Amino acid sequence: MRWTQTLIPTLKETPAEAEITSHKLLLRAGLVRKLSGGLYTFMPLGLRALRKVEQIVREEMNRAGALELLMPAMQPPEIWEKSGRYVTASEVFFKVRDRAKKEWILGPTHEEVITTLVAGEISSYRQLPKNFYQIQTKFRDEIRPRFGLMRAKEFIMKDAYSFDVTDELAQISYQKMYDAYTRIFQRCGLKAVAVEADTGVMGGKFSHEFMVPAETGENEVVYCEACNYSANIEKAVSGGPSLATHTHKLSPPDSAPHALEKFATPGVVTIEALTKAPHSVPAHRQIKTLVYMVDSKLVILLMRGDDQLNEAKLVAAVGSGNFRPATADEIFAAMGAHPGSLGAVNFTKAPVYADTQLRDAAEMTTGANEDGFHYRNVSVERDIKVNHWVDLRSVQVSEACSSCGKPLKIQRAIEVGHVFKLGTKYSEKLGALFLDEDGKQKPAVMGCYGIGVTRTLQAIIEQSNDKDGIIWPVSVAPYTVCITPLGVAAGSATMVLAEKIYSELVAQGIDVILDDRDERPGVKFKDSELVGFPIRLGIGEKSLAKGEVELKLRGGVLTPVKTEEAVAKILETIKG
Amino acid sequence: MRWTQTLIPTLKETPAEAEITSHKLLLRAGLVRKLSGGLYTFMPLGLRALRKVEQIVREEMNRAGALELLMPAMQPPEIWEKSGRYVTASEVFFKVRDRAKKEWILGPTHEEVITTLVAGEISSYRQLPKNFYQIQTKFRDEIRPRFGLMRAKEFIMKDAYSFDVTDELAQISYQKMYDAYTRIFQRCGLKAVAVEADTGVMGGKFSHEFMVPAETGENEVVYCEACNYSANIEKAVSGGPSLATHTHKLSPPDSAPHALEKFATPGVVTIEALTKAPHSVPAHRQIKTLVYMVDSKLVILLMRGDDQLNEAKLVAAVGSGNFRPATADEIFAAMGAHPGSLGAVNFTKAPVYADTQLRDAAEMTTGANEDGFHYRNVSVERDIKVNHWVDLRSVQVSEACSSCGKPLKIQRAIEVGHVFKLGTKYSEKLGALFLDEDGKQKPAVMGCYGIGVTRTLQAIIEQSNDKDGIIWPVSVAPYTVCITPLGVAAGSATMVLAEKIYSELVAQGIDVILDDRDERPGVKFKDSELVGFPIRLGIGEKSLAKGEVELKLRGGVLTPVKTEEAVAKILETIKG
Repeated sequence: MRWTQTLIPTLKETPAEAEITSHKLLLRAGLVRKLSGGLYTFMPLGLRALRKVEQIVREEMNRAGALELLMPAMQPPEIWEKSGRYVTASEVFFKVRDRAKKEWILGPTHEEVITTLVAGEISSYRQLPKNFYQIQTKFRDEIRPRFGLMRAKEFIMKDAYSFDVTDELAQISYQKMYDAYTRIFQRCGLKAVAVEADTGVMGGKFSHEFMVPAETGENEVVYCEACNYSANIEKAVSGGPSLATHTHKLSPPDSAPHALEKFATPGVVTIEALTKAPHSVPAHRQIKTLVYMVDSKLVILLMRGDDQLNEAKLVAAVGSGNFRPATADEIFAAMGAHPGSLGAVNFTKAPVYADTQLRDAAEMTTGANEDGFHYRNVSVERDIKVNHWVDLRSVQVSEACSSCGKPLKIQRAIEVGHVFKLGTKYSEKLGALFLDEDGKQKPAVMGCYGIGVTRTLQAIIEQSNDKDGIIWPVSVAPYTVCITPLGVAAGSATMVLAEKIYSELVAQGIDVILDDRDERPGVKFKDSELVGFPIRLGIGEKSLAKGEVELKLRGGVLTPVKTEEAVAKILETIKG
Repeated sequence: MRWTQTLIPTLKETPAEAEITSHKLLLRAGLVRKLSGGLYTFMPLGLRALRKVEQIVREEMNRAGALELLMPAMQPPEIWEKSGRYVTASEVFFKVRDRAKKEWILGPTHEEVITTLVAGEISSYRQLPKNFYQIQTKFRDEIRPRFGLMRAKEFIMKDAYSFDVTDELAQISYQKMYDAYTRIFQRCGLKAVAVEADTGVMGGKFSHEFMVPAETGENEVVYCEACNYSANIEKAVSGGPSLATHTHKLSPPDSAPHALEKFATPGVVTIEALTKAPHSVPAHRQIKTLVYMVDSKLVILLMRGDDQLNEAKLVAAVGSGNFRPATADEIFAAMGAHPGSLGAVNFTKAPVYADTQLRDAAEMTTGANEDGFHYRNVSVERDIKVNHWVDLRSVQVSEACSSCGKPLKIQRAIEVGHVFKLGTKYSEKLGALFLDEDGKQKPAVMGCYGIGVTRTLQAIIEQSNDKDGIIWPVSVAPYTVCITPLGVAAGSATMVLAEKIYSELVAQGIDVILDDRDERPGVKFKDSELVGFPIRLGIGEKSLAKGEVELKLRGGVLTPVKTEEAVAKILETIKG
């Protein structure tokens, strides 16, 4: 391709809309253009890179035995009602009505469609296992589309769905995808790590996320350098709060517990306020009482005063993603007190979920369910009827690894892939049953596997850049080689050689761009660095007079190369 | 690929939903499955064929110098308001609202998006010409989705948009696309013909449609075998009504015209009724008076009684696609009479559009705008104030070709492509201006070019099949070769040879499927014919004993081939 024949609208200035490096570079390198918030056009070079990522995904999915198909974006709501997700997932749906006023959902994911399809096409264990995938455009009504392709209204996903006869066989399918994902991100030049993840509204049994460490990521990964434990913070557990910050365990003292005692705390309505004089109760000796509405029913959540609620864990604990904090009115109606004076002592009017950190805790302080009063000497086992012991807290940095006891670290990251073991939730509800060898009808055991293809493209840029621009891995670069003749007049020595090397590289199947613009060398070099082609071949009169051209790897130094060796040298460099 | 590893859900019975051959075969060969009306999943083999069509389109677009990009499906309505099509095209829009209640349009086409993009990126004549294309999913709220992929709610289009400095250069871009389309359909094995077409709501100057002749097509093409004239019936003109059926011209007789005469026609409210005794006025001597509301204003349309209104021509005539027949009440309020007694004699309260067939017509009969009365001896020039002489009638079979006078033919056809010369309509409205060599700012001259990719796939099947199934052209077949061992036991002579030939063909880059199912030969052969692989290689014990395998071209006869020559023979056949 010749530079003047394509469109590479590089920008000197960074558009104000871009907050993170990769978003800035996508725009500055002319790879995408914004149509509207969360909606981007892939320009010629952006699309080339995207197609290369797609092709890597496709090759590895095919290698793992998955079958590519293509499902519609528009989906009938009836199948979402069957799966039970019409309500739980509806917040992210875009919905349309056709001229007959019938509603359709723009698919944010395709479990319902594929399971319905399989219900109609698969009837015998002989047809299993099967793993279907597609590379397809998804739609999500994001609360806040941002960071370019990272969180867009419309994006490309590779989504795959496996169907197996037994749980054990499903585990094999899961592992195949796990391995394929590892290869895919490697081939894309991405340092991605697999971490234990929460299953969220997807339901299912367990899952891993593939995370690209990046300060601008919207996720947090908890990891242990000693034993390689790693998990999304939504899922991560620890051996308990850091010993450094909490010298006391909450277990009962050796002596007999003190009697429950109510005391006046006028105007004290925060954990923080109670830590101060005259009360001086350390936060970790307080019980935090949160009241939520889950599926329109009130529930009580208890945690240590210095712990933070992890909403993903709440979903797992209560089995529903449909929740919100209760309003002050709802709370007062149920408990007879306002936030700041709440507690669960002897409270039985709603289910009580307590964080496991509170198990056996004694000598605790909590609200008395009476405005302006608290209880001290609360012994959880004695004084509170806990219905469910659950994990509700977010792990904090430096807490002990639950596997090896070493201090945990936390790092921000971008989620680029997610593999789920789903079990039979969808196959049961949508009728994906098969007749097994034993003559019995059984639901297929499913897994589902997603890669954010457009997000992966941007993650590559987020992870691989410098002050001058993008540093593309060869595998996904829009063009591998940029030939930059400094003089472009037809028939000039520089242009004649440029054309010759261009033809030879094209004949070798290399993706080459020839910068045939009549621009100053500085402009051409800057653009080449900004767009980030892995290899640049400069052809100037001076070096040409010495029989040389200038080879420069992106981010590396300039190396003079004999003119006649240039092609061989480039091929060798690409093979690496 | 092995048959047992993929999913080819062939059907013995034709699903009741399928009306036309290609739709039946898409389903029966397991290429697609219906999710809902107008929404189809491409199964593994259907997707393979689709991708091959896409790749042919891509290669020819690239060869013609067009640049691939990818625009979002979701579009902001603001740009449609700017172009003026928010109202005129809104009937086919699917619209969504996001959580902020803002409206978005699911793009049925992308003129507005690309022109907005170009407005931002192109500023100088030096950057032109440019032609951008994408292969992308479109959405249309069809009145009646039907015939499978032919008229779907969601479908894949290749849409391209060219931008040029002058009208003459735009003509070159148009011709390049015309030529590329010709090659694309040829390479897809389709007999497609380019015909003159109406520009419809797209506006623009002129256009051609690429039509695949087929009895089940939703279009009608008028053509002349003598001089190669061909046009969509929406656009077609003729030298006038057939001489065979109309011996009289409508021009005035030599004698002086008779005076206008009103006569009673109680109960006579159709053209047909007036042809009967006692009035006996032939249809071609009647004036048909139609009343339409165009952009909410009344207009009168006059045609010969035996002619049919062509609504596409009405759009061209009145310059709006926003019309409907007036209601009886609206008509009575404006004209003082009811349908059946209408006429335009001395009528001036609304614009009168008359079909050119009525020019100079005399001795005509028409309604008197008084219920139960008609006029005879109407001389159009003398008695009717015609505001616009226009072409409103549909050409009928056997009318004279306007170029050469020979009788025209009419054939049904499937529209697979459409090229438009748009002019500056969109570039002016959406600001796609460039600074020309002369220092003046000018709007880019545009063309737009569409191919229904999914429809093309189905048109191939509609044109190429027999009683046994699909007959794929090699270029787009899901697999080129189907190897059919009759015994599939591991280690059996038939299977060992099948595997060997399979490996050799795969190594040669041939798309091969190995039918490794343990099924009766009849079942395997029938499926192979149904899916329509171009080449089948049968491997049976009997012929193997003679050192032979059986090569069969789809639709051809079975030819014994020496075992060791099989691969060479297949390669030769494919190159063929």
